[in-house]
Amino acid sequence: VQIEVVTIGDELLLGFTVDTNAAHLARQLAAQGVAIVRRSTCGDEAHEIAAAVREALDRTGAVITTGGLGPTSDDLTKESIAAIFGRGMHRDESIVENLKERWKKRGWPGDLPVANLQQAMVPDGCEILTNNHGSAPGIWLEDERGRWVAMLPGVPREMRGMLADTLLPRITARLSAGAEAPRVIASRTLRTSGIAESALADKLGPLAKAPFGLSLAYLPGVEGVDLRLTSRGRTAAEAEPVFAQATAAIHELVGHNIYGEGNDDLAALVLDEMRARHITLALAESCTGGLLGARITAIPGSSDVLLGGVVAYANAVKRSMLGVREATLATFGAVSEETAREMALGARERIGADAALSITGVAGPGGATPGKPVGHTCFGVALGGDVHTFTMNLYGDRAEIRERAAQAALFALRRALAKPAS
Amino acid sequence: VQIEVVTIGDELLLGFTVDTNAAHLARQLAAQGVAIVRRSTCGDEAHEIAAAVREALDRTGAVITTGGLGPTSDDLTKESIAAIFGRGMHRDESIVENLKERWKKRGWPGDLPVANLQQAMVPDGCEILTNNHGSAPGIWLEDERGRWVAMLPGVPREMRGMLADTLLPRITARLSAGAEAPRVIASRTLRTSGIAESALADKLGPLAKAPFGLSLAYLPGVEGVDLRLTSRGRTAAEAEPVFAQATAAIHELVGHNIYGEGNDDLAALVLDEMRARHITLALAESCTGGLLGARITAIPGSSDVLLGGVVAYANAVKRSMLGVREATLATFGAVSEETAREMALGARERIGADAALSITGVAGPGGATPGKPVGHTCFGVALGGDVHTFTMNLYGDRAEIRERAAQAALFALRRALAKPAS
Repeated sequence: VQIEVVTIGDELLLGFTVDTNAAHLARQLAAQGVAIVRRSTCGDEAHEIAAAVREALDRTGAVITTGGLGPTSDDLTKESIAAIFGRGMHRDESIVENLKERWKKRGWPGDLPVANLQQAMVPDGCEILTNNHGSAPGIWLEDERGRWVAMLPGVPREMRGMLADTLLPRITARLSAGAEAPRVIASRTLRTSGIAESALADKLGPLAKAPFGLSLAYLPGVEGVDLRLTSRGRTAAEAEPVFAQATAAIHELVGHNIYGEGNDDLAALVLDEMRARHITLALAESCTGGLLGARITAIPGSSDVLLGGVVAYANAVKRSMLGVREATLATFGAVSEETAREMALGARERIGADAALSITGVAGPGGATPGKPVGHTCFGVALGGDVHTFTMNLYGDRAEIRERAAQAALFALRRALAKPAS
Repeated sequence: VQIEVVTIGDELLLGFTVDTNAAHLARQLAAQGVAIVRRSTCGDEAHEIAAAVREALDRTGAVITTGGLGPTSDDLTKESIAAIFGRGMHRDESIVENLKERWKKRGWPGDLPVANLQQAMVPDGCEILTNNHGSAPGIWLEDERGRWVAMLPGVPREMRGMLADTLLPRITARLSAGAEAPRVIASRTLRTSGIAESALADKLGPLAKAPFGLSLAYLPGVEGVDLRLTSRGRTAAEAEPVFAQATAAIHELVGHNIYGEGNDDLAALVLDEMRARHITLALAESCTGGLLGARITAIPGSSDVLLGGVVAYANAVKRSMLGVREATLATFGAVSEETAREMALGARERIGADAALSITGVAGPGGATPGKPVGHTCFGVALGGDVHTFTMNLYGDRAEIRERAAQAALFALRRALAKPAS
């Protein structure tokens, strides 16, 4: 099965908006064995929409569009595509009722504005794709020859919801009407931290290229290097055991550095473990300035574990709020393992937590000194009776160095938690 | 002048990579008066590339491609497009020299790998577009009728560099060969905070739709509502005074809420003002958990102003690290203007700063209590002898509420700084 996607909107074409819908559609469809063979973007004008959709329809007979379903005069998707199919338009009263109900439910004053009724105009002979996440319904239009266009809204949240709720099940049902299981593109991601891309490839040895006939991509980012295994040409049932084999083989070689799969967030994993073991946490941040705290507290329920922290940006604050000694700062400098140790101990004691993490480094672009270049970052992990300190030379710009530092601190804490209690 | 863009790559088509090149190209070209009328994305196969580029060339005669110029067997852009033009391929020795020099300069061991020589193969009769940011050179291919394809690399940094260094000047020169100044698409953005989209439109009155013949878009986000004025069909010189007029008229009506233009960051503006006035800052964050500190310290040189802060997530930390009174927490609750006031005063005193900001709120999804729904957030601004407190009901999910809270705190500080000293 081959599909084309047409994303519609001047905002996309002019580059004011980056087209994230297209990538989302592609990933979701590939996972169902549907290949997108071409993607086009056109502006809001009726003739542009009609041309782009007609050409796509001629090539594949199956087209998904996004955008142009709203209530304004710019929204011409339905009319333009109805014209390709030689269909007229009519008002769908069930949509009108739905819009009126939405309006009332929100407690907005007065009656539904006339402009909104435009959203109830649909091509003759179409089917409505319900929108549970917004007001513009989607449209499915099909001709006698089985050629079809599915029109989804452009707002990403609504598009994603409608795709999952309505369109994907419909496409999957069409596919399973055929005889055999579809060959899908499926992928699995292993997340690593604390190891460089080249070192990973070295350690993986003969697996580094195409383990068990899967393709392996290295995706370096500020949270570490993700390993993406991709299977092509297998059915979902065939792909599963190959992924399991490859994952086990990779774990054997670099398991030490793998902290999760898919979209796993290291902060969430660390929190879960600390919550289960009733260990509370305090933070002492210098160069990250609150970034580690912000990352941890982005997770609902983090207050079970994180009591608080100190952003000790100025040296005076390291002394007054964390009890770092003047002599330590004078002898070893603010960016040193000695200072990191006292920051972690001070945070743990003053905040009254069981464990503490500290970060102090040179985030750049200024601030480098001889022996302490931009990226030079010292960490402290206070857990149990132990304070572990270490130094990393992180690379990238200021933002990257700070994010890498937060991730490195979490990874160190995770390793410390994994050790048997001293 | 009309151009089509074809972005090439399986990664784009499969949705593993979001196509940011397309948006960048569109914005840069629009600013030169060049309209992109269609954008297509195809996979790495030669016949797909040839079909997409041929169709685009038939429609406009002017095509920019990105991707497929690398050294691997997947990189088929040059061959596929040469075939459309009926051209053969040859090896360009100047590129070979360049590649060899790059290899040596980097100190890599051994000779240039044979695979890299693929990058030196170019279509007969093409022009080379120098790449100052990577190894793959770009290609300009033109036929007797003046139809052309410009091939740029897919790596965003290299694509952007080559566009700026080489391709835009070339396209601009072509345009200026014509008689008159090109009609461009130009835009200007005014950034507002502390006012809802609908209230903005109300206050702008008759300007709300199309001030001075410009189109006006409302772009709500976590930092507030941006107002984007867009001019179409004017030359750059004609657009400038219209922007100035419209900006002045909008300032007259809602200037109180406008804090900047373009990509201005409110945190940077506040820092600049405090630095100039030698005012230092301390933070006390509860629900934002360090996000405000992270945002401020993302800016190089923020240490001139920000001394530090306390992330007081647990009530015990609000008491021990900020001196919030037990009675205040018991009587008014942790999310109250009374607590916000004591947090700000405590942070200012203990950190020894001139000014302090505090935030305490219900970020959700849990934590709501009667009278304090999710999004209910209290702020304190300590500046001079004064502590100003206020409450906002912020909307969105947890992440949005926290970002809105950080922005609201900065906006309140900016207003406090603008007041005559008390």
